[in-house]
Amino acid sequence: MSKIIRVLGISGSLRAKSCNTGLLRAAASQLPEGMEFEFADVSQIPFYNADLQEKPVAVETFFKQLEQADALLLACPEYNYSIAPVLKNAIDWASRYPDNKLLGGKAVALCGAGGGMGTSRAQYHLRQVCVYVDLHPLNKPEVFANAFAGGFDTDGNVTDDKIKSNLAAQLQALQAWALRLRVPS
Amino acid sequence: MSKIIRVLGISGSLRAKSCNTGLLRAAASQLPEGMEFEFADVSQIPFYNADLQEKPVAVETFFKQLEQADALLLACPEYNYSIAPVLKNAIDWASRYPDNKLLGGKAVALCGAGGGMGTSRAQYHLRQVCVYVDLHPLNKPEVFANAFAGGFDTDGNVTDDKIKSNLAAQLQALQAWALRLRVPS
Amino acid sequence: MSKIIRVLGISGSLRAKSCNTGLLRAAASQLPEGMEFEFADVSQIPFYNADLQEKPVAVETFFKQLEQADALLLACPEYNYSIAPVLKNAIDWASRYPDNKLLGGKAVALCGAGGGMGTSRAQYHLRQVCVYVDLHPLNKPEVFANAFAGGFDTDGNVTDDKIKSNLAAQLQALQAWALRLRVPS
Amino acid sequence: MSKIIRVLGISGSLRAKSCNTGLLRAAASQLPEGMEFEFADVSQIPFYNADLQEKPVAVETFFKQLEQADALLLACPEYNYSIAPVLKNAIDWASRYPDNKLLGGKAVALCGAGGGMGTSRAQYHLRQVCVYVDLHPLNKPEVFANAFAGGFDTDGNVTDDKIKSNLAAQLQALQAWALRLRVPS
Repeated sequence: MSKIIRVLGISGSLRAKSCNTGLLRAAASQLPEGMEFEFADVSQIPFYNADLQEKPVAVETFFKQLEQADALLLACPEYNYSIAPVLKNAIDWASRYPDNKLLGGKAVALCGAGGGMGTSRAQYHLRQVCVYVDLHPLNKPEVFANAFAGGFDTDGNVTDDKIKSNLAAQLQALQAWALRLRVPS
Repeated sequence: MSKIIRVLGISGSLRAKSCNTGLLRAAASQLPEGMEFEFADVSQIPFYNADLQEKPVAVETFFKQLEQADALLLACPEYNYSIAPVLKNAIDWASRYPDNKLLGGKAVALCGAGGGMGTSRAQYHLRQVCVYVDLHPLNKPEVFANAFAGGFDTDGNVTDDKIKSNLAAQLQALQAWALRLRVPS
Repeated sequence: MSKIIRVLGISGSLRAKSCNTGLLRAAASQLPEGMEFEFADVSQIPFYNADLQEKPVAVETFFKQLEQADALLLACPEYNYSIAPVLKNAIDWASRYPDNKLLGGKAVALCGAGGGMGTSRAQYHLRQVCVYVDLHPLNKPEVFANAFAGGFDTDGNVTDDKIKSNLAAQLQALQAWALRLRVPS
Repeated sequence: MSKIIRVLGISGSLRAKSCNTGLLRAAASQLPEGMEFEFADVSQIPFYNADLQEKPVAVETFFKQLEQADALLLACPEYNYSIAPVLKNAIDWASRYPDNKLLGGKAVALCGAGGGMGTSRAQYHLRQVCVYVDLHPLNKPEVFANAFAGGFDTDGNVTDDKIKSNLAAQLQALQAWALRLRVPS
């Protein structure tokens, strides 16, 4: 059984210079051995609507990435004390896949950059979403990055060493968690 | 001071035959005296993106409706144990208005149609959103409509008398709540 | 109609030197004109048990205080990301009063002292409790005091001016909110 | 490595004829092979207070049971839309054990009997508690038993076959989940 853990990173922000997307870049730059990382671009995915007859191309691409992923890293902006719609919508689309095969049983880690609470309020809502879609969120470490205290440059890149090392620790924990969850073959 | 309460109804579903939109129609058909009702069409509002330079037309229209509203009635679908992105996104847009004048201090009632829990999980998340945007949600009665137990026809219209009367009671409570919250002039 | 607002302060901590109880003392020391403050001692209230035949004395005393209160100030410790049982239990007892007359319709403000998030996770749970018991929580300002950053002395007294002024602002907002909620006689 | 999973059942209700305690009895009566079950009596555990110098006897007993447990089954009453203090308090005590050894990393399943929502609101709060104390809650099946629809006798025993089989399915899933979480030795 392969020990490589393939992580798909999804950012809930559309901003070009988003700090949340910056968290994913910082994660990708410090992967532990045995982990691979890919970004999902969910910016072209339309609002879910059960009336739609055809699957949009952006959704098809996203689904292919999810099929290949062992685990997810979700960068979760907080808007008005809850989840950014872009991220929630991507998950909602994925949850409609037959037998929930894109999400069900996978390991996931949550991170976010925002105000003083570091998007924690949104992340707890996101954890409730995970119950229904049968994702298994990592308990610790949680990553709550303050985006207004100098930890990011104006392009949204992480500059703060503590945030970087927190992310690195989260990736290692995610790797261990994903391996632990693997059903023995 | 006028005693007329103008309610803006917002549905979080894009489906043509949505039961959640049906709840708003049922509400509109049984307004108490002294209450006026208008639908907001939020289907053309794009995902919020702070990079956008211009306000989309659909957002402008929505904002004008909000300016006129004394109170809101939110029909809140539940997707994966949380809020439908269409509804959350509309609120996120509105929250960016200067000084929060479109939402701040207004009365709001929540209703929803879904599975056995009647979207309650999503509605409690929505209540947390109300804290930040300074909306004042009605405590009671809550409207949790089961959409899979025969209370709606195939066009999403409410057919169940108990759901109808529950909505009527909610509108009356919303009217009283909005009047109570009015700062005396 | 009297304009005096009588506030009952309830602390969820049993510790003699609790920072949460300290928040209530700091509030009591800077009341706006027109507000009166009383502490509730809930330390002797046993766990609620529907089998109990008689009302414990501590519960009787608490109920008398609640009868006199126009509004509540709840100091909410956070244990393990949720509400301290002492506080929740006091509210559970009060909620059993006939017709919910001790709580129903009253204004309430929440504050708390804890780790870096300042008990916010517990406070959002407490806000959900308010829905059922029909309390009306103040939206803003929220009081999230960091108890590990030097804002309190070793007896739990508030020493930080920003926390003090935040509490003073909350009391003023609570006063305005309670007056706004008063049903005109 | 032993494949026996020892489950500790904890009820959050003090009532002699509690339906929540009845859920635990119903679970204990239909254990899958390879699972052992023990009840924890938490009724004598006092409110947690960091000032207490000595550990109460009931806490000592509870801790010994937790040491032996591989997994937990929590019967979670809902009071006022959140967790019953008796249950929360037991968890708060356990969380103070050095290095979180009584809870950290263990599998847990949640069930509850209450009104029409079957204690779901309380269970989602309890899931947030699990994040901090590093318990791993089972995602599915969830057990939400309606205690007011004839599924229990007057002694709190489960009489409804659907509730029984739902509990049986939950125990089997808990067993699989606990085995999956076992770190290979």
